[in-house]
Amino acid sequence: MSSPFFIFLEVEKVKTILTGIKPTGEIHLGNYMGAIKPALELAQGNDYAPVYFVADYHGLTKQTDAAEFKRLSYGVAATWLALGLDPEQVIFYRQSDVQEIFELNWILSCLSSKGLMNRAHAYKAIVDENRLAGREQDHGVNMGLFNYPILMAADILMFKTEVVPVGKDQIQHIEIARDLAESFNHQYGETFVLPEFIIQEDTAVLPGLDGRKMSKSYGNTIPLFEDPAKLQKHINKIKTDSLPPEAPKDTENSILFMLYKEFATDVEIAEMKERYADGIGWGEVKRDLFEVINRFIEEPREKYKELMASPATIDRILKEGAEKARTISRPFLKEIKDKVGF
Amino acid sequence: MSSPFFIFLEVEKVKTILTGIKPTGEIHLGNYMGAIKPALELAQGNDYAPVYFVADYHGLTKQTDAAEFKRLSYGVAATWLALGLDPEQVIFYRQSDVQEIFELNWILSCLSSKGLMNRAHAYKAIVDENRLAGREQDHGVNMGLFNYPILMAADILMFKTEVVPVGKDQIQHIEIARDLAESFNHQYGETFVLPEFIIQEDTAVLPGLDGRKMSKSYGNTIPLFEDPAKLQKHINKIKTDSLPPEAPKDTENSILFMLYKEFATDVEIAEMKERYADGIGWGEVKRDLFEVINRFIEEPREKYKELMASPATIDRILKEGAEKARTISRPFLKEIKDKVGF
Repeated sequence: MSSPFFIFLEVEKVKTILTGIKPTGEIHLGNYMGAIKPALELAQGNDYAPVYFVADYHGLTKQTDAAEFKRLSYGVAATWLALGLDPEQVIFYRQSDVQEIFELNWILSCLSSKGLMNRAHAYKAIVDENRLAGREQDHGVNMGLFNYPILMAADILMFKTEVVPVGKDQIQHIEIARDLAESFNHQYGETFVLPEFIIQEDTAVLPGLDGRKMSKSYGNTIPLFEDPAKLQKHINKIKTDSLPPEAPKDTENSILFMLYKEFATDVEIAEMKERYADGIGWGEVKRDLFEVINRFIEEPREKYKELMASPATIDRILKEGAEKARTISRPFLKEIKDKVGF
Repeated sequence: MSSPFFIFLEVEKVKTILTGIKPTGEIHLGNYMGAIKPALELAQGNDYAPVYFVADYHGLTKQTDAAEFKRLSYGVAATWLALGLDPEQVIFYRQSDVQEIFELNWILSCLSSKGLMNRAHAYKAIVDENRLAGREQDHGVNMGLFNYPILMAADILMFKTEVVPVGKDQIQHIEIARDLAESFNHQYGETFVLPEFIIQEDTAVLPGLDGRKMSKSYGNTIPLFEDPAKLQKHINKIKTDSLPPEAPKDTENSILFMLYKEFATDVEIAEMKERYADGIGWGEVKRDLFEVINRFIEEPREKYKELMASPATIDRILKEGAEKARTISRPFLKEIKDKVGF
């Protein structure tokens, strides 16, 4: 007699991956290379079912100018669409169109110890800053900011997200979402998926005008959808040394070259390396850098402008996306509430 | 020539008055006399447009047993209905059926400084207790509890509440709601009504079995809808002195008499005073007290039992109430979001 024989077939499941983008400032080239491009690449291939959202209610923790807030929110949506996000292929919505998230946010609040929020990095950083400056420790902290990790957990857990791509400073947020999911599952039975994070190590860190990482907080950015004349002006401000045109130059520490190689073809990059070695004037490099960046953004810039001129189109796309999202969030919230005893 | 002559007509406006009831425990006679009865009386007359709600999401900050939570929530609704709340005449809903409240809750969070919550009495009382006991100051505090005053402000402001009847320990909550309403109005233009509180000074404070105020926290309560046999048992436990039956007795400090006078007719009260003066056995007073309380609760107890046996009926009434409430909350949230820049 032989014992039963099993063959285990590992079925590759498509994983839900979630990316939220806050409307807190003008989107720049560094955002594109470091976050938008890698996030869009995840939608290619068959490994992931991507969910993207405009995290407008997260942005509200830092913005009280209604007109600016509106402009930035539409800007985020238009950017993603202009850069190739296909709303037919993914779920793409505005957080404020999915009301279930805010009810889940309250449920998770009741499961979250205050100690967990006291230990959140972003909050602690503000407290440290206030102490250093001799201010009251909660100076400038609003409750949206303090509750931020809970709303983020609601965003993640509502869509049974399995993977969240993050920067290193965001890992703790995923851990908090896992903590809350585990508390709920423990208390009310298996309900939430425990999310995991992936850190995209290999994404390009673009230098800004001054050579430091391009970042809004350094004021060294090149806006993504800048008009040609303004784009050239920005590029002209990039720091160079005072070597004469004919002197051979090093690509290694050249901010211009670091930017150039992100937008040029392999052939163009090889040629530019030679021209550096032979001696090339910085003005010439700046003109060529303008050409490759402008070539890349020309088409999406047009699309972005069209979209921004037609908020009704953006609204329609986001509303349709929200309807798709709510086919998940509505029944899932009902299931969650049933378990809690509503 | 005479100057223009005006007559000012003061138009009496019907004011919106809001009362929420948390499902956190068995409702007892003290709750009825101190809160339910006065709140129901406000619905009489033409001064107020009353809104009542089952504050189930507030109860969730203290309850993680799903079956018990459900039973208590239905219990609160059934109690109000059994005691004469007419859902046709007022707005009566379950908080968890009005999703707009939780989105407003997040908007108000972003306007609320953390300092405001640090100073909330209920939170501070827990911190003090923890410090006294040598525990970490936030021990046992969950974020639902910490955010409680903001959700309460959302409850109040969503329905343009003008008056909230409160106990003295609740005044701060109304002040916080006013603060948040003022911040919003200042930032985004006149939107919210500033609520006022009324303290119902003249409501009866019922003594419990031991003579202290009847309160769940003292464990000295008489449940409101107790069966006759159990009700008599509770009454038999009420503290008396050891005077013999024939000795004349003082009504002044008699717990039995204090309870009796709340449920007896004027004639019965006058007679009982005489019987005290003439000498009466405590057993006899207890039987008579049982009679007047039981007479009062007989009918609502039947209605309560019927309702609790038919949760579908309660659901239907509350769903209809929520629909009425949402004819206010849906368009008002839209107006609020428009102003914020969504």
